[in-house]
Amino acid sequence: MKENPLKVIMNPRSIATVGAGNNLTKMGTIQALSILKDGFKGKFYPVHPKDETVLGHKAYPSVLDLPEAPDLAVFIVPTELVTGLMEDFGKIGTKRAVVITAGFRETGAAGLALEKQLKEITRRYGIRFLGPNCIGLVNSALPLNITVMPLLGPPGLLGMASQSGTYITQTLGLLRRRGIRFSKAISLGNEADIEINEALAYLGEDEQTRAIALYIEGLQDPAGFLEVARQITPHKPIVAQYVGGTAAGARAGSSHTGAMAGPDHLYDGLFKQAGIIRVYSVEDLYGLGWSLATQPPLKGKRIGVITNSGGPGTAMSDTLNAGGLEVPVFSEVLQEKIRPLIPKQGARGNPVDLTFFLNAEAIAVAIPKLVMESGEIDGIVLHGAMGTGFMEEIHIHAEDLFGMPREKFLDAFREDLHPAVTLPQKYGLPFIVSSFLNEHDDYNIAYREQNVPVYDSPEKTARAMNVLWEYRQIQQRAPAESALLPPVEAEAAALVAAAVKQGAPILDEYSSKRVLAAYGIPISDEGLARSGSEAVELARGIGYPVVLKGCSAEIAHKTGKGLIRLQLKDDEAVEQAFEAIRKAAGEEIPVLVAQMVGGDRELVAGALQQPGFGPCVMFGLGGIFTEVLRDTVFRLAPLDRPAALEMLAAIRAKELLGEFRGMPAVDREALAGILQKVGNLLLLHPEIKEIDLNPIILDGARPVVVDALITI
Amino acid sequence: MKENPLKVIMNPRSIATVGAGNNLTKMGTIQALSILKDGFKGKFYPVHPKDETVLGHKAYPSVLDLPEAPDLAVFIVPTELVTGLMEDFGKIGTKRAVVITAGFRETGAAGLALEKQLKEITRRYGIRFLGPNCIGLVNSALPLNITVMPLLGPPGLLGMASQSGTYITQTLGLLRRRGIRFSKAISLGNEADIEINEALAYLGEDEQTRAIALYIEGLQDPAGFLEVARQITPHKPIVAQYVGGTAAGARAGSSHTGAMAGPDHLYDGLFKQAGIIRVYSVEDLYGLGWSLATQPPLKGKRIGVITNSGGPGTAMSDTLNAGGLEVPVFSEVLQEKIRPLIPKQGARGNPVDLTFFLNAEAIAVAIPKLVMESGEIDGIVLHGAMGTGFMEEIHIHAEDLFGMPREKFLDAFREDLHPAVTLPQKYGLPFIVSSFLNEHDDYNIAYREQNVPVYDSPEKTARAMNVLWEYRQIQQRAPAESALLPPVEAEAAALVAAAVKQGAPILDEYSSKRVLAAYGIPISDEGLARSGSEAVELARGIGYPVVLKGCSAEIAHKTGKGLIRLQLKDDEAVEQAFEAIRKAAGEEIPVLVAQMVGGDRELVAGALQQPGFGPCVMFGLGGIFTEVLRDTVFRLAPLDRPAALEMLAAIRAKELLGEFRGMPAVDREALAGILQKVGNLLLLHPEIKEIDLNPIILDGARPVVVDALITI
Repeated sequence: MKENPLKVIMNPRSIATVGAGNNLTKMGTIQALSILKDGFKGKFYPVHPKDETVLGHKAYPSVLDLPEAPDLAVFIVPTELVTGLMEDFGKIGTKRAVVITAGFRETGAAGLALEKQLKEITRRYGIRFLGPNCIGLVNSALPLNITVMPLLGPPGLLGMASQSGTYITQTLGLLRRRGIRFSKAISLGNEADIEINEALAYLGEDEQTRAIALYIEGLQDPAGFLEVARQITPHKPIVAQYVGGTAAGARAGSSHTGAMAGPDHLYDGLFKQAGIIRVYSVEDLYGLGWSLATQPPLKGKRIGVITNSGGPGTAMSDTLNAGGLEVPVFSEVLQEKIRPLIPKQGARGNPVDLTFFLNAEAIAVAIPKLVMESGEIDGIVLHGAMGTGFMEEIHIHAEDLFGMPREKFLDAFREDLHPAVTLPQKYGLPFIVSSFLNEHDDYNIAYREQNVPVYDSPEKTARAMNVLWEYRQIQQRAPAESALLPPVEAEAAALVAAAVKQGAPILDEYSSKRVLAAYGIPISDEGLARSGSEAVELARGIGYPVVLKGCSAEIAHKTGKGLIRLQLKDDEAVEQAFEAIRKAAGEEIPVLVAQMVGGDRELVAGALQQPGFGPCVMFGLGGIFTEVLRDTVFRLAPLDRPAALEMLAAIRAKELLGEFRGMPAVDREALAGILQKVGNLLLLHPEIKEIDLNPIILDGARPVVVDALITI
Repeated sequence: MKENPLKVIMNPRSIATVGAGNNLTKMGTIQALSILKDGFKGKFYPVHPKDETVLGHKAYPSVLDLPEAPDLAVFIVPTELVTGLMEDFGKIGTKRAVVITAGFRETGAAGLALEKQLKEITRRYGIRFLGPNCIGLVNSALPLNITVMPLLGPPGLLGMASQSGTYITQTLGLLRRRGIRFSKAISLGNEADIEINEALAYLGEDEQTRAIALYIEGLQDPAGFLEVARQITPHKPIVAQYVGGTAAGARAGSSHTGAMAGPDHLYDGLFKQAGIIRVYSVEDLYGLGWSLATQPPLKGKRIGVITNSGGPGTAMSDTLNAGGLEVPVFSEVLQEKIRPLIPKQGARGNPVDLTFFLNAEAIAVAIPKLVMESGEIDGIVLHGAMGTGFMEEIHIHAEDLFGMPREKFLDAFREDLHPAVTLPQKYGLPFIVSSFLNEHDDYNIAYREQNVPVYDSPEKTARAMNVLWEYRQIQQRAPAESALLPPVEAEAAALVAAAVKQGAPILDEYSSKRVLAAYGIPISDEGLARSGSEAVELARGIGYPVVLKGCSAEIAHKTGKGLIRLQLKDDEAVEQAFEAIRKAAGEEIPVLVAQMVGGDRELVAGALQQPGFGPCVMFGLGGIFTEVLRDTVFRLAPLDRPAALEMLAAIRAKELLGEFRGMPAVDREALAGILQKVGNLLLLHPEIKEIDLNPIILDGARPVVVDALITI
């Protein structure tokens, strides 16, 4: 296996900087300061043309003067100096770099040319690099922080790869206040060399990283991304935000890192296929990522809700329930154990509501302990463990009455919170806290130190629990299976080649279906007639009723043009229909005689080459409402069997595929097989741009492709 | 007009407390402290059985000893003392009260009995009261704070009525940190007397209140709520959270305040009907409410995005676009003006991305000014005005280099932020800020002081702008029209009365449709036949093709039972069908002969008495997928014309009602008329429990009710 270049980039023994000096208003200097002050223990070699020392460390006038080839070169110089300096590092044998400098692809043609030049140089020397136009990286275990803001604090558990540098630096203070700590964080910048797939693979293998957060504006290689992510998600959760899916988002992203974005529904499908949990804000990226990184698996749906107030208790219950979790009524036995611990106006049935009752031991220790011991729940959400943050509020009005300054007053109320905050670990159940108090509240601090997530709203707390459940479902997905492509079928290849040779933009319906049938996709029983008697002969063979359609590459959209005759019940009707079609369409037009497939359930499927994204398979609800309801889902081809089966369950109208109004449940394997095959077809015949199967009718349990069109 | 009892409750000149003493661990004492310390300037009369003074104020041994009848009595005594003390206040002539004491309806049968007794006493004395089981109230203008936590700060603009006391007290510190300030806040508790509708009406009239936030676990009187809310929303935004819509939410709410909750989709419809913006977390209730309370109207879709980082800029653009707003590319003229203000690697086209460029004047003054002056945008979102919060981060690593302690260091960077933070007011455009910095950052403080909302994430910032746009649409809704009920039709009344008299649970299809037709609802042309020849005669009158159906109250679910014969094209077919139906259904069964209505578009509508909620009208997509797609919306009856028209636009499949696949657009007035009439019918005939119109088929543009069922 090829070694991931980030192994050295994230763990260098020696770092050289170009662009860091002693001027603290310069970004380069601030970043060098982060390296030094956040505790990097390896060698630090600042390169500086004039100064003898940089931040107290011996400086070297040029790269060529360095005493050794550093493991990592960090570029924070003006754009025009990058390529020359990269050459120098190449010459001395440095193999890894971080190019923070901006002004490349994201700025237009000249920048793009410069970026190409940079890539040419690094390829020549075998240098692998992050950036350009990134902010650096964080490895909290080493520790190493090459960003603009201080990291501080102990090592964390959440890995991050971000197409915005801000999200691993401007937010470091915010994350510190919320108790969220990175294991490793990687700013990707323009991804001229190392792109997100390698970063994701690195975080997937990194033992310190327990969950991965991705901020994405666009993927260069969605198929590669899927392959990497799919191997990670069964054992490590990935949460991702995608912001390139609208016109404005795509344009903004493009001027940011030159990213190539794609429609939102394709990314949505990709994430689902990969088992990635999607979020819609950076707050959720961090916040939900942190619960995924810190909490044990949520093994069942039963959640205990403990609160000191009805509002948060009700809001958490509602949010949990809406997310598929349950808030079961506690057994009488458990309720009787809780009864003496709460005031008489409280509730003990789940939620346990202590009402505004200031007994911290009851809410934070005794009751959670009883509930966890009971075996009646699989996880706990708690609102209302109030410590110094609450007393601080009380002190505002009561200062003169107590006659104590704030700190002394707070100290008088400080207790040993260890029994409370270590409780979750003892029972090994997910335990998530809601608090409206400030970040300095001693409970909040103590919980956070124990990696118990604390959110500033009941709904976020409940949603974090919901996301643990979402991940549990992902973990329990059927394991990936082989999606090996079958051999190319000669008949199909010949039909496609013929169309290409003729310069036809599409294959006619009959040929399209022959191509499908060559790969085992079930189509209506049919044949091509060139005379009325041929049509009757075919109809008799197929069995009445039949349908007749004019069939040529020119007739793409047939409905409404008088070229279809449905429900033909006998020879006479067939002959008449044949003549009518010939009359309307022309004497040369062949006529398709096909089985009249009955069934009230119509579906659509297809496959298309999506520029900048890859070969996609589509599946959805068909019939006349297709374009109105837009109940369709997309996945990348090739599909393995579990991915195809998941598509069936991903449409809103999925109940239609079960037993429905006296109709049998669909043959799911057959339907999933169609989706796999149509995707494979696109990959086996790169000349094909698009395949539409519309409709697929359920003939009882059996899906049959009734009309199809292949576009070249 | 009846005076709203909250006028005095929120603005008392004198307050008596029962239950407040000198023990600061008691809630009553803490609440009295809030009254006194938060600056209440009226008279304060503590009633206390033993102590001579309470918190330094002369105390009175009993209510009967008070020197005057106080405007407001506040109860924080044990449950069993409430009724006796209420009697005493009644005797001395006090007319308004707040009962904070819990232990009533929410605790079960005994509590419910006590609550009834309390209501009996207050009715006798003409006392109006909040609670019981509430936390008090806040009037920041007076100021008056009767909650457990300190209010502090200047008066605010956001009014709140909450079915959880926590949300006007436990969160006061959180709101202070976020710069969100209540105008008035009302804790509703069990709503034994004053319920949410009166509170909403009060906030609607209150001039200090610019937007209203509602936390709802269940409504006692949804129709009354709708009436009040509908009058407010055209001129003052209302934002609401409803948490009783799941099984767990409903149960939790019931043990909280004894609230009667209802299914989520009914509340969702009610909010839409009332023009209320729905949110799903208390954070959004406050946060989005605050933007609605502080910002001028967003008059157009064009938003300027100004950022110091690509990630937040892209995320804001994507979120704005997803919410229906636009991020238009700036004119060349404007871009050229911006160019000299940003670094060369920056972007100026909108988003304006300064990249990590520390020129506060450019990002916070010069660029927003240029953009607002340009006339090219209707609102601005800004990320990256970084003041002392940023310097605080820098100082962590650079303390020894600068040799300055933190405060001195920060002071050195403090600037006059007035030009920046007063800019939005000058231009009168919505202006919303995103910042990852802490709440003490001087920009954050200064913006908040000017009522410019600051959110801790780019997405929240963009969503706040989206919500301003959502409110703009609400303001521009067609004005409410009269929804006066028509007179009762004698034929309909007779049919319903006959069914009631027979004890029949339903009306048969023919009678059901006669009732509908009596109110002008278009039904299929049809008649009842008792012989084959009658059937033929009817069919000829109607015109072929026709449909025959066995018709009796017993035959409710007809499809699949062999009692329908479709597409009958001639006399012979009608006679055969008549015989077949008689044979299957019985010789006595009348047979309905009806026009065969053609059309591929099927809809459903209906009306039902929803226990605990009221008479609802339903509308949705019909056909065989009805139960699978669940594309239905609900509103309270009676519907005015605009509300009925809005229902048509509220289904997902709404495009179906336009021109579609060669079919004409539906006659919207006719369809809306059906919805109005079916709702009216339910109100005019209270014996009717439910009416189903399924399907309504679009015969070209014209909606026709093809099958119907009225349940008694």
